[in-house]
Amino acid sequence: MKEPVKTIRDTDEDARRLARRLVRSARYGAIGVIEPGTGFPFVSRVLTGLDVDGAPLILISGLSVHTDALLADPRASLLFGEPGKGDPLAHPRISVRTRAERIRRDDPAHARMRARFIARHPKAALYVDFPDFAFFRMTPQSANMNGGFGKAFLLEAGDLLIDSPAIADVAQLEPSAIAHMNADHPGTADLYARVLGKSKKTGWTLCGVDCAGLDLSNLDELMRIEFDEPLSQASELQTKLVQLSRFAREK
Amino acid sequence: MKEPVKTIRDTDEDARRLARRLVRSARYGAIGVIEPGTGFPFVSRVLTGLDVDGAPLILISGLSVHTDALLADPRASLLFGEPGKGDPLAHPRISVRTRAERIRRDDPAHARMRARFIARHPKAALYVDFPDFAFFRMTPQSANMNGGFGKAFLLEAGDLLIDSPAIADVAQLEPSAIAHMNADHPGTADLYARVLGKSKKTGWTLCGVDCAGLDLSNLDELMRIEFDEPLSQASELQTKLVQLSRFAREK
Repeated sequence: MKEPVKTIRDTDEDARRLARRLVRSARYGAIGVIEPGTGFPFVSRVLTGLDVDGAPLILISGLSVHTDALLADPRASLLFGEPGKGDPLAHPRISVRTRAERIRRDDPAHARMRARFIARHPKAALYVDFPDFAFFRMTPQSANMNGGFGKAFLLEAGDLLIDSPAIADVAQLEPSAIAHMNADHPGTADLYARVLGKSKKTGWTLCGVDCAGLDLSNLDELMRIEFDEPLSQASELQTKLVQLSRFAREK
Repeated sequence: MKEPVKTIRDTDEDARRLARRLVRSARYGAIGVIEPGTGFPFVSRVLTGLDVDGAPLILISGLSVHTDALLADPRASLLFGEPGKGDPLAHPRISVRTRAERIRRDDPAHARMRARFIARHPKAALYVDFPDFAFFRMTPQSANMNGGFGKAFLLEAGDLLIDSPAIADVAQLEPSAIAHMNADHPGTADLYARVLGKSKKTGWTLCGVDCAGLDLSNLDELMRIEFDEPLSQASELQTKLVQLSRFAREK
């Protein structure tokens, strides 16, 4: 890998936060795989979700080029960060090198991934159980981020994966936490979105909870709210949600 | 390459037109290359232009991962077609397998590529002459297009390249045709954009002309107007422009 020292900036906390936001708030990305037979690096578009430790998830058809490719060679990269208006190169984006692992339906992690993915992409419920579709977990190996012209950073796997002893416990709590927040605290997701995510819209609901933050959803939009620090035990989740609401109300 | 017959539709003229529009109207795309050293398929974002025969052009820094990669292995793919609102997988996109060729500054084609690229991306004028930047011509080999869920097509190089004996002659005429149209027929680009491209905006100017169509530009937007048939000689260009104006005025 080329590391042209004079153009790569030191990876600081701001860069790590931006990198995580790009990966974790994405609805979709461009995936690059090595096409069997031709050997071409082949790029296509995939919806993306997140596993409980921050690793991207994809749900793809066995009839696609990328399924064949990933089964033959697990090396893949994912480009996150979509340009809005203006110069496309002024918008930050990140290329994450990943190793793909196909998740079997009888894998204990499958139900959790399925639930999290559908919460993020409700329309995927239409085909998630088709026999030719499968989840792949895309474990980050390293990444190159471009925060705009001349702002290049290199990141390591650890910068993108969530590090906490509470990952499994928070995953257990997630479904009830989401149901409780959306049913018993209507308006809180809108409050988070307005104050913490600068959204001018209403209609947000909570669709994901993990040790490092919250995912909010509003029709076809997603928003990621990152905690300052990952939770170190599941019991901190409730305190954190209350803290965020209080902080947001005071703003 | 996998060709799952039951999911691939026959490539008809509508599919070819959509494929050309996706490639030729793009401001940018995701490029996949094979990264030297790691062997990973690496995806990043590039601005794209068009050579006079419809082959995509990119302008990239020698300090980037993709320059090193393309010099070591010219196989690359380009994903075109950006999602707007709604389901990202409902928006058409195309993955074009290409072979990259670096264009030296003393190549006779360089000045033409430079002019066409800057006409499309005026801000690229700021760095196009930096010594570490270079154009690569990305000659299409084949493509997979996805026109929306379940609408997959395979395309050949010939579906994406412009076939005409007049390519070089029209390229000669291009600068004066653009200058003439924008200076002497103000409003004509707006007329084309409104009637042929369903734009509600004004402020369009002509920024490219080739045997197969016109490129219109409006700040950060591009629009491609394809002719029904490619011009077979350069003298047909004026007639075609007049014909399009007449057709548009009658609408």
